[in-house]
Amino acid sequence: MLRQSDPREINPQGEGLVKGVAVDPVIFGFHENQLKILIVEHTDTGLYALPGGYIQETEDVDDAAKRILAMRTGLSDVYLQQFHVFGKYNRNNPDVIKTILLGQGFQPTDDHWSLKRFISIGYYALVDYTKTKLTLDPTTGSCEWYTLENLPPLILDHRIIIEKALATLRSNLDQLLIAFNLLPAMFTMAELHTLYETILGKKLLNTNFQRKMLSLGILERIEKKKTGKAHKSPYLYSFRSSEPE
Amino acid sequence: MLRQSDPREINPQGEGLVKGVAVDPVIFGFHENQLKILIVEHTDTGLYALPGGYIQETEDVDDAAKRILAMRTGLSDVYLQQFHVFGKYNRNNPDVIKTILLGQGFQPTDDHWSLKRFISIGYYALVDYTKTKLTLDPTTGSCEWYTLENLPPLILDHRIIIEKALATLRSNLDQLLIAFNLLPAMFTMAELHTLYETILGKKLLNTNFQRKMLSLGILERIEKKKTGKAHKSPYLYSFRSSEPE
Repeated sequence: MLRQSDPREINPQGEGLVKGVAVDPVIFGFHENQLKILIVEHTDTGLYALPGGYIQETEDVDDAAKRILAMRTGLSDVYLQQFHVFGKYNRNNPDVIKTILLGQGFQPTDDHWSLKRFISIGYYALVDYTKTKLTLDPTTGSCEWYTLENLPPLILDHRIIIEKALATLRSNLDQLLIAFNLLPAMFTMAELHTLYETILGKKLLNTNFQRKMLSLGILERIEKKKTGKAHKSPYLYSFRSSEPE
Repeated sequence: MLRQSDPREINPQGEGLVKGVAVDPVIFGFHENQLKILIVEHTDTGLYALPGGYIQETEDVDDAAKRILAMRTGLSDVYLQQFHVFGKYNRNNPDVIKTILLGQGFQPTDDHWSLKRFISIGYYALVDYTKTKLTLDPTTGSCEWYTLENLPPLILDHRIIIEKALATLRSNLDQLLIAFNLLPAMFTMAELHTLYETILGKKLLNTNFQRKMLSLGILERIEKKKTGKAHKSPYLYSFRSSEPE
């Protein structure tokens, strides 16, 4: 695993950073019908968290999310979507943040900016996790993929952020499949079915699934391949380039 | 129109407010097949804007949006949805904000907090505009409904915020109809059709519309009313309480 020193990420004085607002990306890794989530451990604390970061004063919020994602995974040009603001006035926990800063060798004063109220802007990304190059910065002791079932306890409201990201991902699935580019240009109904089951985390009846998918009007059926055994090969489908009325 | 003095809303020193983050609600007024948007004019400036506001230090972001909506419209308990964060680092315009503050009789210094970078959290609401009691606070000279076609030029990126809210509203329409409670418990396909056309702002073919609505699986068909002319009365529908598989 790479270890990189990004001065923007270990900056206890917060120079040049927007105060009071953080970006927390939920990075879903998808590969061979498994869905995992990227989690960091803050150095020498045993505290697990989303791989979040701060916004620079002269940086758009969306660009901050892209930078943080690229810094952690080595990936740019992946689908990254802002999905919700977490704005409870008491969602920060000064004791937890103090522990994290102490783990980095920094002793904050009680009025330190990072101990005050923080609004978190949630993003989610869906990446092929075999393509990522996970990177540690000086603030994190580990950076690993976890399945939903095996998530460690997380700081603050990070578990809630993940649940909300997952709910958004699931509810937008039909529209997102194209954007995420999770399937080849042509695919079978069985492949689509497996993808849905993996992300929704439950079994779907074959017959209902096919009927629902076809009724959405987003699929185009392509002629069967000429294999000499045409009656046995399944139909191939592709996504229509735009949704019909 | 009411005029109310809310000390939280005319507070040039920003005491007790979160700095650098605002809430901008896009309030859609819906009545008799018309869709309108609530716009304020800042006192003595000729500058038009969304009826936004600030977040108090000990107030959740969602509660700030509710408070601002209630303060402007007299309505609570309406559907209010966070939809996007507007985070371009240079989206604020100090000259515009200075003009607005001067209109309120306040001369800001060049390093005044309200002239610095501001992140806006966008919300949208959909209300029956005959039920609203529009209220002016000391910072606004007018507060009026405008159709989309007749919107005045707006400050900063407020026009973009409206466009994004409208796009979100349209794309979520199927799921939102229930939440918005825009229809009676039972309705005809023709009533549903008119509602869609109004919000989408375009004509939809009758036959396609009915087929699409039925395929979504969210409608339940109810027996025709016994009118003595059953063959002429249209079917009534209601929304299913939850979506099927």
